[in-house]
Amino acid sequence: MASIFTKIITGEIPCYKIAENEHYFSFLDINPIAEGHTLVIPKKEVDYIFDLDNGSLEGLMVFAKKIARAIDTSLGTIRTGIIVEGLEVPHAHIHLIPIYFEGQAVSLGKKTEVDESRMKEIASLISKAVEL
Amino acid sequence: MASIFTKIITGEIPCYKIAENEHYFSFLDINPIAEGHTLVIPKKEVDYIFDLDNGSLEGLMVFAKKIARAIDTSLGTIRTGIIVEGLEVPHAHIHLIPIYFEGQAVSLGKKTEVDESRMKEIASLISKAVEL
Repeated sequence: MASIFTKIITGEIPCYKIAENEHYFSFLDINPIAEGHTLVIPKKEVDYIFDLDNGSLEGLMVFAKKIARAIDTSLGTIRTGIIVEGLEVPHAHIHLIPIYFEGQAVSLGKKTEVDESRMKEIASLISKAVEL
Repeated sequence: MASIFTKIITGEIPCYKIAENEHYFSFLDINPIAEGHTLVIPKKEVDYIFDLDNGSLEGLMVFAKKIARAIDTSLGTIRTGIIVEGLEVPHAHIHLIPIYFEGQAVSLGKKTEVDESRMKEIASLISKAVEL
């Protein structure tokens, strides 16, 4: 069965899309821990990130770097952090966490309420700043 | 001034070393959030991980994958997670977090007490399992 992320890639499930290329896709986390919390995934459905072949892992990180830079330039972060846990959805994914101030918790525990119009606005801001 | 991590690489500051190659180095986090919590760093002193050039970032992740696989095979994890915050030490570093059970918090908040002899034992176990 296709993972929920594969359904997002194919458009079967809607998302706040940020960017994609041939092999990778990114979109806003629907349960953000900070405004602009973004997921970056390989289109290939592999559960564990460290089961990706080296080339796919390298490509995923370079793609993630482009998205992180777009987050930094569009949202006024001090930088963007990374979390990979990967136990909830069996499709490797990198959480990019915008860090707005020193001491901000970079953990998936505490969610932030962001309404639909702001999610759309954030996705548009980041998306426009991506240089693929 | 050399970062604390550069001093660890040169041996000026001791560490529980896991592995190194020409460009990367890994050692146990001295304040682990779980047994086997490991740091992976580039030898080149760059503050922000997404300021690394693409080649260095790719190499860092492939090196991290080797260390993560060694953690998984030597410590009986269900997998190894990743955190990058990078605000405490101005030298890019990846936290590899051994995950032993579903629901384990992957966050840098809660430290675990691990005594020196166990730290040595863990470093030895992981180190022997690394295939560079």
